[in-house]
Amino acid sequence: MSTYLTILGFNSAIPTVNSSPTAQFLEMEERHFLIDCGEGTQVQLRKAKARFSKINHIFISHLHGDHCFGLPGLIASFRLLGRETPLHVYGPKGIKKMLETIFRLSETHQGFEVVYHELSSLESELIYEDARIEVHTIPLDHRIYCNGYLFREKPKERHLNMSEISKYKEIEKCDYHNLKLGKDFELSDGYILKNSVLTLDPSASVSYAFCSDTRYLESIIPIIKDVDVLYHESTFLHDLKEMADYTGHSTAIEAAQIAKLANVGKLILGHFSNRYNDRSVFTTEARTVFAASFLPTQLEPVKIGS
Amino acid sequence: MSTYLTILGFNSAIPTVNSSPTAQFLEMEERHFLIDCGEGTQVQLRKAKARFSKINHIFISHLHGDHCFGLPGLIASFRLLGRETPLHVYGPKGIKKMLETIFRLSETHQGFEVVYHELSSLESELIYEDARIEVHTIPLDHRIYCNGYLFREKPKERHLNMSEISKYKEIEKCDYHNLKLGKDFELSDGYILKNSVLTLDPSASVSYAFCSDTRYLESIIPIIKDVDVLYHESTFLHDLKEMADYTGHSTAIEAAQIAKLANVGKLILGHFSNRYNDRSVFTTEARTVFAASFLPTQLEPVKIGS
Repeated sequence: MSTYLTILGFNSAIPTVNSSPTAQFLEMEERHFLIDCGEGTQVQLRKAKARFSKINHIFISHLHGDHCFGLPGLIASFRLLGRETPLHVYGPKGIKKMLETIFRLSETHQGFEVVYHELSSLESELIYEDARIEVHTIPLDHRIYCNGYLFREKPKERHLNMSEISKYKEIEKCDYHNLKLGKDFELSDGYILKNSVLTLDPSASVSYAFCSDTRYLESIIPIIKDVDVLYHESTFLHDLKEMADYTGHSTAIEAAQIAKLANVGKLILGHFSNRYNDRSVFTTEARTVFAASFLPTQLEPVKIGS
Repeated sequence: MSTYLTILGFNSAIPTVNSSPTAQFLEMEERHFLIDCGEGTQVQLRKAKARFSKINHIFISHLHGDHCFGLPGLIASFRLLGRETPLHVYGPKGIKKMLETIFRLSETHQGFEVVYHELSSLESELIYEDARIEVHTIPLDHRIYCNGYLFREKPKERHLNMSEISKYKEIEKCDYHNLKLGKDFELSDGYILKNSVLTLDPSASVSYAFCSDTRYLESIIPIIKDVDVLYHESTFLHDLKEMADYTGHSTAIEAAQIAKLANVGKLILGHFSNRYNDRSVFTTEARTVFAASFLPTQLEPVKIGS
């Protein structure tokens, strides 16, 4: 159950013939999350061979068109495909009003429930949790209310050390669950077998942080600390730092600085301004600060974690 | 100044990797009209190399998503490209509310005026007119309020018959305008030269009718009578006539029947249900009623008129 990130689009503002606006598809512990949904995302999902019916949670960073104008069409398609499962939409306050106005006027009648989770807090919140995964908001600093999202696997169960366990006939299969949870085992003679002998360390818990759109913002560092992969926007190069500040965006150096301070495993840059034809300038600049900086690859799944 | 129709998309309901939802780009007498605007239309316009700045009038048939969900993104892109010219949007009552709600919540501030022409009449109306062109609505019968659009060049000026005109020194260049308008010319001796001698018939006025989405509806025939090209939806083949009626659509035979009764020059079918992989079945069926029935070709300009 590896974690895969498929970047469906990473263009800023105006879509072009070859690059789509922001949308990402994250498969983590058999959950299928959609992050942002610029215009055309439903076609990108088809190209990525994502199964629409498996997407039950959509996380929208902010209400600028290049991050959410694909949502009405995607939800309308869910309906046409006969969906019955509830769909959870997380996004800024106002997203419900926007979508419900569109659906009312276009007479798009859902056959399924859309559950809106409207966000307005300026502090990081736990907004999704199940047995294996947590999702937290990452409050960002853009021209409009905006959150990034942190996806984090919960600590996993310990692995059974069968070569040790097999030495003790008293340990039965029904005891394995407690061993995986880290408990010691008491033999009938009262001798305590330490859990650290009977089990091995769990697989690492994978984490992914999505941060777009935002100015340089150090307050996100404690939230995204040590994540395996950070996607951080870098709309401009640093010579346009003033433009970045004015428009509420970051430069490649700033994204790299955040990655370095947060000690992330890998940085993926994105949301590039259309003024740059050669995108390698972004990694060239970012790597002066943080070596593990990479360009996004549209529609090519990237494995997160080992 | 020929008339060209570029079909940007003709898919029904759910967009696929290779075919886009309804949108058409019509160049007539140097005007550039957009008809319907399904999701992804702005990218299709780029593929068609259409200049965004020349589009001043957009005609939306109805508010179902596959005909208008590309509009917010297109208008947002107009703004980002620095547009200042007013944009006229024609569509069903409610289109203003839909777009203004989206723009308010997404903080999409136009630098140009959007002039809404909201339609609610059940009778055909003249909704656009300039020196050379008229646009009329074609009230259709769908599940939701819906209009097709008739684009018609006004009668053109007569051509000067120079071989005749050159025989009369009294006729000067400043007289040409009246001759083109069909007026006779009086010589100084009182002799009347008939206009029919001095001029030739004008070029034919071109006309194009767009009819989607609709059930079979004979009341449109007087409106679209004798048009050069009719685009008429045929979502289903005739064996699914009941389904067509139920969903507010037409069959290929019905589209052909309308084309025949209206004596149009050429019928282009479209808005096919995704259930048909081989679209040639639509022309095969339609041609049993109307020989000049054709499939649409996405992104390939079609000349209208001679």
